[in-house]
Amino acid sequence: MTQIAAPTHPFDAAVELTARTGAPDAYRGHTSPAYANMVGPFGGVTAATLLRAILQHPERLGEPLSLTVNFAGPIADGEFEVTARPTRTNRSTQHWNVELVQDGAVTTTATAVFGRRRETWDSTEIAAPPAPSAHDVAVHEFPDFIAWARNYELRFVEGAVPEPDAGAQPGSTSTLWVRDNPPRPLDFPALTALCDVFYPRAFLRLGRYLPAGTVSLTVYFHADATLLAAQADDAVLATARAQRFGKGYFDQSGEIWGRDGALLATTHQLVYFKD
Amino acid sequence: MTQIAAPTHPFDAAVELTARTGAPDAYRGHTSPAYANMVGPFGGVTAATLLRAILQHPERLGEPLSLTVNFAGPIADGEFEVTARPTRTNRSTQHWNVELVQDGAVTTTATAVFGRRRETWDSTEIAAPPAPSAHDVAVHEFPDFIAWARNYELRFVEGAVPEPDAGAQPGSTSTLWVRDNPPRPLDFPALTALCDVFYPRAFLRLGRYLPAGTVSLTVYFHADATLLAAQADDAVLATARAQRFGKGYFDQSGEIWGRDGALLATTHQLVYFKD
Repeated sequence: MTQIAAPTHPFDAAVELTARTGAPDAYRGHTSPAYANMVGPFGGVTAATLLRAILQHPERLGEPLSLTVNFAGPIADGEFEVTARPTRTNRSTQHWNVELVQDGAVTTTATAVFGRRRETWDSTEIAAPPAPSAHDVAVHEFPDFIAWARNYELRFVEGAVPEPDAGAQPGSTSTLWVRDNPPRPLDFPALTALCDVFYPRAFLRLGRYLPAGTVSLTVYFHADATLLAAQADDAVLATARAQRFGKGYFDQSGEIWGRDGALLATTHQLVYFKD
Repeated sequence: MTQIAAPTHPFDAAVELTARTGAPDAYRGHTSPAYANMVGPFGGVTAATLLRAILQHPERLGEPLSLTVNFAGPIADGEFEVTARPTRTNRSTQHWNVELVQDGAVTTTATAVFGRRRETWDSTEIAAPPAPSAHDVAVHEFPDFIAWARNYELRFVEGAVPEPDAGAQPGSTSTLWVRDNPPRPLDFPALTALCDVFYPRAFLRLGRYLPAGTVSLTVYFHADATLLAAQADDAVLATARAQRFGKGYFDQSGEIWGRDGALLATTHQLVYFKD
């Protein structure tokens, strides 16, 4: 019988980290051309890489509860080092400090809270936006220079990327079905990356491209590993809107909805823009 | 002519930090009985103290844009040390890493992004909740064991702290007018503390007190120093609601509205609870 090794999914290749011998908190990684953005890698993949450093750390306790990633400077194509350090371990929660360094300069920092979950009363107080089934919505084709978008099947229900003659819009909401392309079972790194799948809300409001980039991204994980496993490789419904634009920055809040109306994650970010 | 020194406001006494000689990133502080909560200090004052370490650091650039505070362990009554370290300084933005340590253990960590703001196109896409004038709403009296609440004038428009026989509620929104007591001009630390003024949303939904505590708090600052100065010591309108409760945690999103409908800050947190 011949064993055929399954080819590695481009996402797994992009977030791959190798532990450094003799340095328990240090990992080596490298950028992936498949997830390149206009400047450096797609932020969602960088966030996923920092989360992955914690996930594969031998002292890690439980599952991710929250993650905040600050994008401090550009990441050049090539190798980088990630340091993931547990700052405090309690009985059921654990706090982390993570840094991505390239050529001696910090490009990205993160903090995360991990923990063991218990059954409690539960309630989802917000509602998923209305949307037709994923297969009833056309796949959006991004321009070639946005390499990372080719790794996602993006089906916009509302707030698609504006056409050149679109003009200003009154609202900034985008809602889309999205999954990895090729399909891949959802896990915590992939969910993290999906939280950054929204193009800058200022493009939609002003109806044109302009310089913009995420400054800080926070993810609150509502799904545990069991719920993620149930999602398998189905598309999730992702929605986001801006709250306030002004003096060079705007914030945005988003939600990632899974099968049977399960809220998998809520996410927020602060974004730089230049008009 | 006799100079009369103005007495220090209790908030300023609570967030006071002394630079350590010969250690440029290190500050000493102490807890304040006036801002005690059920276990340790009011989280809003801890968050404000960490922000203040950056504000008074000699290398600080610009004004706060975002702050994430992770509450890793309890803070005991007494002294503590805060370390605020710039991780990267760019032309117009600066990234910070902050830790609060007590008896050698990390109790609180934070990251922040500061920056210089520029005039740009602006738009507030969300609306303030409807509310009568602050002076038409009664001041809420908290029980004595919640010391910190005595330092705020809290006027609930919606979602007041449930009475013992209130029972479960269908929604978790609280909206309140709030200002420091005695009144004090708004600044960045005071605005940060106000972002944590919402009692745990699970109390409201379930109609009873239960063990709960903030795990991670993020503040996005939309106000610059000029807008804060215009607010002076007027009450702000604060509103928050939960999004999802389950498996021991819930998240909450809030807004702080100032004079003339100006959105001063948006804020999010993840909260632990035990039912």
